[in-house]
Amino acid sequence: MVTTSYWSGYPHVISADQFGKSWLLDALFPAAERMVELVKLPVGERPQPLAGMGLYNLFYRESTRTRARFSRAMQLLGGTVEGTEDAEAFSSAKKGETLEDTIRTICSLLYDVIVIRHHEEGSAAKAAQASFGAPIINAGDGSGEHPTQALLDLYTIFREFGRIDGLSIALVGDLNRGRTVRSLARLLAKFDGVTVYMVSPSPLAMREDVKEYLRAHDTKYFELLDLREVAPLVHSVYLTRSQEERPVAGATTRVEIAARFDQRQPGQPDPLYGLNEEILELLQDHAIIMHPLPRNDVFGELPSRFTEEPRVRIFHQVTNGLYISMALLVLALAPQ
Amino acid sequence: MVTTSYWSGYPHVISADQFGKSWLLDALFPAAERMVELVKLPVGERPQPLAGMGLYNLFYRESTRTRARFSRAMQLLGGTVEGTEDAEAFSSAKKGETLEDTIRTICSLLYDVIVIRHHEEGSAAKAAQASFGAPIINAGDGSGEHPTQALLDLYTIFREFGRIDGLSIALVGDLNRGRTVRSLARLLAKFDGVTVYMVSPSPLAMREDVKEYLRAHDTKYFELLDLREVAPLVHSVYLTRSQEERPVAGATTRVEIAARFDQRQPGQPDPLYGLNEEILELLQDHAIIMHPLPRNDVFGELPSRFTEEPRVRIFHQVTNGLYISMALLVLALAPQ
Amino acid sequence: MVTTSYWSGYPHVISADQFGKSWLLDALFPAAERMVELVKLPVGERPQPLAGMGLYNLFYRESTRTRARFSRAMQLLGGTVEGTEDAEAFSSAKKGETLEDTIRTICSLLYDVIVIRHHEEGSAAKAAQASFGAPIINAGDGSGEHPTQALLDLYTIFREFGRIDGLSIALVGDLNRGRTVRSLARLLAKFDGVTVYMVSPSPLAMREDVKEYLRAHDTKYFELLDLREVAPLVHSVYLTRSQEERPVAGATTRVEIAARFDQRQPGQPDPLYGLNEEILELLQDHAIIMHPLPRNDVFGELPSRFTEEPRVRIFHQVTNGLYISMALLVLALAPQ
Repeated sequence: MVTTSYWSGYPHVISADQFGKSWLLDALFPAAERMVELVKLPVGERPQPLAGMGLYNLFYRESTRTRARFSRAMQLLGGTVEGTEDAEAFSSAKKGETLEDTIRTICSLLYDVIVIRHHEEGSAAKAAQASFGAPIINAGDGSGEHPTQALLDLYTIFREFGRIDGLSIALVGDLNRGRTVRSLARLLAKFDGVTVYMVSPSPLAMREDVKEYLRAHDTKYFELLDLREVAPLVHSVYLTRSQEERPVAGATTRVEIAARFDQRQPGQPDPLYGLNEEILELLQDHAIIMHPLPRNDVFGELPSRFTEEPRVRIFHQVTNGLYISMALLVLALAPQ
Repeated sequence: MVTTSYWSGYPHVISADQFGKSWLLDALFPAAERMVELVKLPVGERPQPLAGMGLYNLFYRESTRTRARFSRAMQLLGGTVEGTEDAEAFSSAKKGETLEDTIRTICSLLYDVIVIRHHEEGSAAKAAQASFGAPIINAGDGSGEHPTQALLDLYTIFREFGRIDGLSIALVGDLNRGRTVRSLARLLAKFDGVTVYMVSPSPLAMREDVKEYLRAHDTKYFELLDLREVAPLVHSVYLTRSQEERPVAGATTRVEIAARFDQRQPGQPDPLYGLNEEILELLQDHAIIMHPLPRNDVFGELPSRFTEEPRVRIFHQVTNGLYISMALLVLALAPQ
Repeated sequence: MVTTSYWSGYPHVISADQFGKSWLLDALFPAAERMVELVKLPVGERPQPLAGMGLYNLFYRESTRTRARFSRAMQLLGGTVEGTEDAEAFSSAKKGETLEDTIRTICSLLYDVIVIRHHEEGSAAKAAQASFGAPIINAGDGSGEHPTQALLDLYTIFREFGRIDGLSIALVGDLNRGRTVRSLARLLAKFDGVTVYMVSPSPLAMREDVKEYLRAHDTKYFELLDLREVAPLVHSVYLTRSQEERPVAGATTRVEIAARFDQRQPGQPDPLYGLNEEILELLQDHAIIMHPLPRNDVFGELPSRFTEEPRVRIFHQVTNGLYISMALLVLALAPQ
């Protein structure tokens, strides 16, 4: 098994950027594959490589989904879980404790690994610097990164096609504010011959820093205003949640945003940033449809009636996320 | 051991109605009996039939008591527990996730069983339909059902008398709004020769649907206005919590409610819907006194001074609830 | 191993007062030492004396730090943990359940030990009286006691100097409102030849009850207004958190409080109740600096720049607290 030194010589999981192509292909994905095999064993026969070890979930922000994922990963590996849904209790403004002291306290309690979710960009890196002993796993820091989501997305594509090189991926919807697509784009840029289609209304377009990163890595990308234009061309359509709760310039739905900013003519059809029968028709048979969840049932970028559609992979992503989390824990705590 | 197919061929625990008399007597209660024996063993020698399995507590509503029960049941069987006290974090209105997607996500994380508490009637059944893989256990859905409470109440009566057939049970207090007594009445109706006394002020009387159900099952029932009238006749008195926080027609205590609606004459004694020395005197020696807890210390349907009274079974009910929860988990996850 | 009968014949941990010098030296500290050895073993080889046992964290008040400590202690010993961060859900005012009924319920669910944090002084003792079966551990009851913090502080001093007898300890800062220093002073008084220096602004001076207790135990103490006066004399400086959120007579910082009440002359230097370079210079080489955490990063009684100072023991205290918690659990649940 590959040691964690492949992992930029760094035991923490802070940013998608820290992982190289060869570590992903030679260490992480094979470790995840071993987790798939471990879980296939009858319950009583599964090895427990992390028995006796303890994970602490330090969540400053609600993220029941991500917490449930890491807890289950740790428990399946035989380890124990403790944590808080309200980490402010550790370090309330009134009491004036720093994040660094909170991390040092958890390390001093001999927890073996800390999963942190925080509202401030950069706080996971700050936690990693304060930690002595326990690896830090970033489960989302504000508008910064959510690297384990990007890793599970990449692994989902890899499991499907056996490779990442040469694939074409459409990132669709709110590319400006979604940290998931921002991190995924950076990971894709580490592979060769990948084409990224960015499909969004103009005001929700991918930010310049990501496009700059893609150019620096010689990754082809195209920006488009309608999913129909690229649906026939791609291996994967990555949809994102309609975040109408965060309005742009007074417009409250993506279609309104698009209409306002892209000066469509009256009578022109609405641009498409979600799934419907027309898109399903256009997509190739082997193409897959992804979404980081939660999907928005009200605005419907991936309507419930398509849940059973065979090309939809949204719950496979969740299970793949479990395998990736298990793999990260094993690589950090029980490398061989 | 009886397989889960006895269980209406259905792995979920949604409603008291789904259980037949023979399944209760031949599968559930014997399984609970085995749990009593398991717990009697020295800690280190107890078998762990659910080792390696994971329970998820999906609680949309506070119910620390029920959560503590299922958690302990799972842990005593060797399994692990994870969950949330604030399941809205999974599917906040803003994010627009459906309950179905939340359930599918937990199933995709390979949790083996989901205990759900929700504020909407029917949500447990909805969860059961969305689930793939994990049995759903209803720990209370709004004013709907709380089947495991009814099962533990029935088991408490059964452990005491070795049978249910032919017993006389008084249900006392707020029969209109208490889902516990509503579910228990339906379970009692599945047995033969049971007599149900319903003792409540008229405006808090048992609803018509339950009485209809009792008639359809040829179960005798009587409605009364004072516990004294039936105390000498019954095997069990089932008291309920004074829910004065939910006033009826402006009256705030049960006695006021009774006075207003039952047109008692001045000077007439207050009707009794709780325990006092007079009732204890009237009850037979072998009769038992039950209550689903929490009891109301302020309004006092079961005053603290009677906690040590030998016929009071309120904390036996709690322990029996643990055995029933263990039995349900074992029957669902490790039937033999 | 010494049995729990040394422990005042009482299985609960309610108050620092209940422990005698010989039990501390002959039972608790040796048990803690065994925990140090247990944790040094490779993860897979550690004995699990509490395997199969269950701890319930009943927290009415946020105390993530203390909860994380007992959870980790129980998990390291092989036991399981369940609990609530919001114990009001058990016994909301509306529902009117008493603390006693809540404790009886948890005992009836066969939890083996209950750690309680409550806002009312005396509630831990009340819980101990209601408990049948499960030992109660007081993790702080209002302005009452926090005995396990005092025990870990004492153990930290003991580990450093191999004894308590004859040592000189400075308690510094808000001695009036800090329950930590109050409990620690009482524990110190049980040893011989200890000298306690109480360094605080007059309005935050140690209360009379503690001083009375010290006199009754023939423990020398001195009250002072500036840490500089005693820094060269002591084995340990025990700093406390600046609790400016609780103002005294309109003054909001300790220096203001001191200035107002101690009538310093203009031009006189500020009194010192925290660490700075001057104090570090004055302290002996073998002296240690302690703090119960959280420290206040804003008011700075122990500024972050001193975290790496070799005499600072604040995170050693946390780890020692873990060993003490493990020792208390083992002595209560698996005495030999």
